[in-house]
Amino acid sequence: MSEIKEKACQAKEASRQMAKATTGKKNQALLAIARRLRAAKAQILEANRRDIARAGTAGLPKPMMKRLTLDEAKIEGMATNAEAVAALPDPVGEYIAQWRRPNGLLIGQVRVPLGVVGIIYESRPNVTLEAASLCLKTGNAVLLRGGSEALASNVAIVEVLQAGLTEAGLPAAAVSVVTDPDRRLALEMMRCNEYIDLLIPRGGAGLIKSVVENSTVPVIETGVGNCHVYVHREAGLDRAVDIIVNAKCSNPAVCNAAESLLVDEAVATTFLPKAAEALRSNGVELRGCAKTRAILPGIKEATDEDWAAEYLDLILAVKVVEGPTEAIDHINRWGTRHSEAILTNDYLAARRFMDEVDAAAVYVNASTRFTDGYEFGFGAEVGISTQKLHARGPMGLRELTTYKFVVQGEGQIRA
Amino acid sequence: MSEIKEKACQAKEASRQMAKATTGKKNQALLAIARRLRAAKAQILEANRRDIARAGTAGLPKPMMKRLTLDEAKIEGMATNAEAVAALPDPVGEYIAQWRRPNGLLIGQVRVPLGVVGIIYESRPNVTLEAASLCLKTGNAVLLRGGSEALASNVAIVEVLQAGLTEAGLPAAAVSVVTDPDRRLALEMMRCNEYIDLLIPRGGAGLIKSVVENSTVPVIETGVGNCHVYVHREAGLDRAVDIIVNAKCSNPAVCNAAESLLVDEAVATTFLPKAAEALRSNGVELRGCAKTRAILPGIKEATDEDWAAEYLDLILAVKVVEGPTEAIDHINRWGTRHSEAILTNDYLAARRFMDEVDAAAVYVNASTRFTDGYEFGFGAEVGISTQKLHARGPMGLRELTTYKFVVQGEGQIRA
Repeated sequence: MSEIKEKACQAKEASRQMAKATTGKKNQALLAIARRLRAAKAQILEANRRDIARAGTAGLPKPMMKRLTLDEAKIEGMATNAEAVAALPDPVGEYIAQWRRPNGLLIGQVRVPLGVVGIIYESRPNVTLEAASLCLKTGNAVLLRGGSEALASNVAIVEVLQAGLTEAGLPAAAVSVVTDPDRRLALEMMRCNEYIDLLIPRGGAGLIKSVVENSTVPVIETGVGNCHVYVHREAGLDRAVDIIVNAKCSNPAVCNAAESLLVDEAVATTFLPKAAEALRSNGVELRGCAKTRAILPGIKEATDEDWAAEYLDLILAVKVVEGPTEAIDHINRWGTRHSEAILTNDYLAARRFMDEVDAAAVYVNASTRFTDGYEFGFGAEVGISTQKLHARGPMGLRELTTYKFVVQGEGQIRA
Repeated sequence: MSEIKEKACQAKEASRQMAKATTGKKNQALLAIARRLRAAKAQILEANRRDIARAGTAGLPKPMMKRLTLDEAKIEGMATNAEAVAALPDPVGEYIAQWRRPNGLLIGQVRVPLGVVGIIYESRPNVTLEAASLCLKTGNAVLLRGGSEALASNVAIVEVLQAGLTEAGLPAAAVSVVTDPDRRLALEMMRCNEYIDLLIPRGGAGLIKSVVENSTVPVIETGVGNCHVYVHREAGLDRAVDIIVNAKCSNPAVCNAAESLLVDEAVATTFLPKAAEALRSNGVELRGCAKTRAILPGIKEATDEDWAAEYLDLILAVKVVEGPTEAIDHINRWGTRHSEAILTNDYLAARRFMDEVDAAAVYVNASTRFTDGYEFGFGAEVGISTQKLHARGPMGLRELTTYKFVVQGEGQIRA
């Protein structure tokens, strides 16, 4: 039996215990994990140093090295994270609805854990703690497969997680990490429908695409965000400059950052020079359509590749549009259904944008950067789903649950 | 461009119009469809006769022939069905929640259509009307691929659907049927992530398995039900006989029919002879474990295949268990997470069964046959999901929608 099958099968067993665990027990485990993380700082950093040494020899690219590297502050952050998850309300057991049928049957729809959640991710060892905490809180077992470059760090963190579970009287097998680096095991994990109920890939576009294409286990697709800010003719133009600068520059490497700016022709000559000045002073390179380039001479021409791009960098594509119809068409054609904003004081334009733009989050007069579990008030974030099934947009704890119907009768039979 | 790509792309275009359509317009289309179905009875029956003649020559098995055959009553049933769907509340536009954040952002979570729903199904031409009505009501476009044996019937029904849409000013391309019988097109449909948002296979276990294994488009798995009725020692035994007879015999060919009976050892000698008499008088063949066979001599031995079987026939596997622990373990091991019932007057046993059995619907003192969209009060049924993501158990109109977040601000930017 492969390591995946064996650990997934043990996780399934453990998931039955986790599903029965009270909120009190699960919180006890999370708090024990936080305490033990702080106590095990030295061992975790030591394991992390081994990963870094190996990765250095293997010539891992710099950004990945940075994501791989832990320090005391990051471990303290993990501990605080586990405590924060313990403090959140437990969605398990919540009644979504309950009603009585004419024949007297009482039907309740109650939230229950999914079972076993698989996480496939890349370099960042903090994902190990974060993903596991959220799964534990929701009564799921979790099977982790991180990048092989982070294996020693991940194993050290999982040891802490398992010790915390054991301390609270919960099964250690509710969290486990795949240690065999063989890539075929990832494929096996994607096809382990017997034991794994949900797969969440976390990482770059290549990883996510591979999981979506190869997995027969249900997947939640997260990530790609080609987000637009549309400046309507009735936008307050100063406020509009602040918003596009925030959407583009406050963290250009994340999925809710803006990648394109659309501007109504009626205000383009007044708005674009102001916006360009503010964006350039933040180091942003602009690429534009012909009309944009007539107003902002010297910038590069934007091609279809630019309209489609998720730059994740200080680059912004700019297009002048006739009005809402062209803006909405452009967004529905090129967007990735993540986060889209209109800036306007026009009631009908705002309503139309909210109704017609097909995206997880549609904004009126706010930055796209708010698409985030914490900013939405969920207290946690499992990821940002860009698919339509099960969960869309920022996923909190509820999105790691399913429901069952509990039907109580007094001998009813069907006519 | 293949027929799938072409029709799926047109469906995607049409889905944008459908998403904007008011409930009034969608109902107008459904009522026009009902009227036109009645007017087109002769043409539909004529097309159906052509399918039947061809299927007869090709030697289609009898049960499939029966499912393929339409008559006036079935067409009247389709028209009534379209009218019933028009009368249901429209889930689109419903606010699931709306809340204000400390920074003043108003965040609403609002139901929207999924987009394009693909249905892959077998012989029954009434599925064409049923699936399309539910998709239209929920503002989705639908791409249908029925069995090639029902093609002429399906085309005739889709013509009526399209005429009804056009009459209401909605795009005809919101409903289309794949006419090319090439099996490779089914595979192409399963991988058409660009245009299709959800696939629902409707038919036998083989069809569903093939779609789950080959599809990269998200799938809702429906169907297989290996359902149990567990007679606890504190069950009222006469009532228990009525329930098992109802669960097994009222419609043995459906997924919510019982396939196994579990009986507490403490009541086995009194209960089993009574139950066997009632079941046998309904034509049921029993297969049992060793303890069952000691009480009911002469019945066949039940093997692991029986514990796993979805007979869909008048056969029932019977096992004597020590008590709730063994019953729950058996169900969680062999069940298909569909519908499971305990019969008891014991409070703790009932609670434990509800908590620990992992199934879409868990019953106390009622027949498993109630797992059904109509019996649950949804007014419609898209199918019964046996998966955990997106929808579980009977699916009504809501389960054909997703949501988006609509975020309204006054210039908020992220700190």
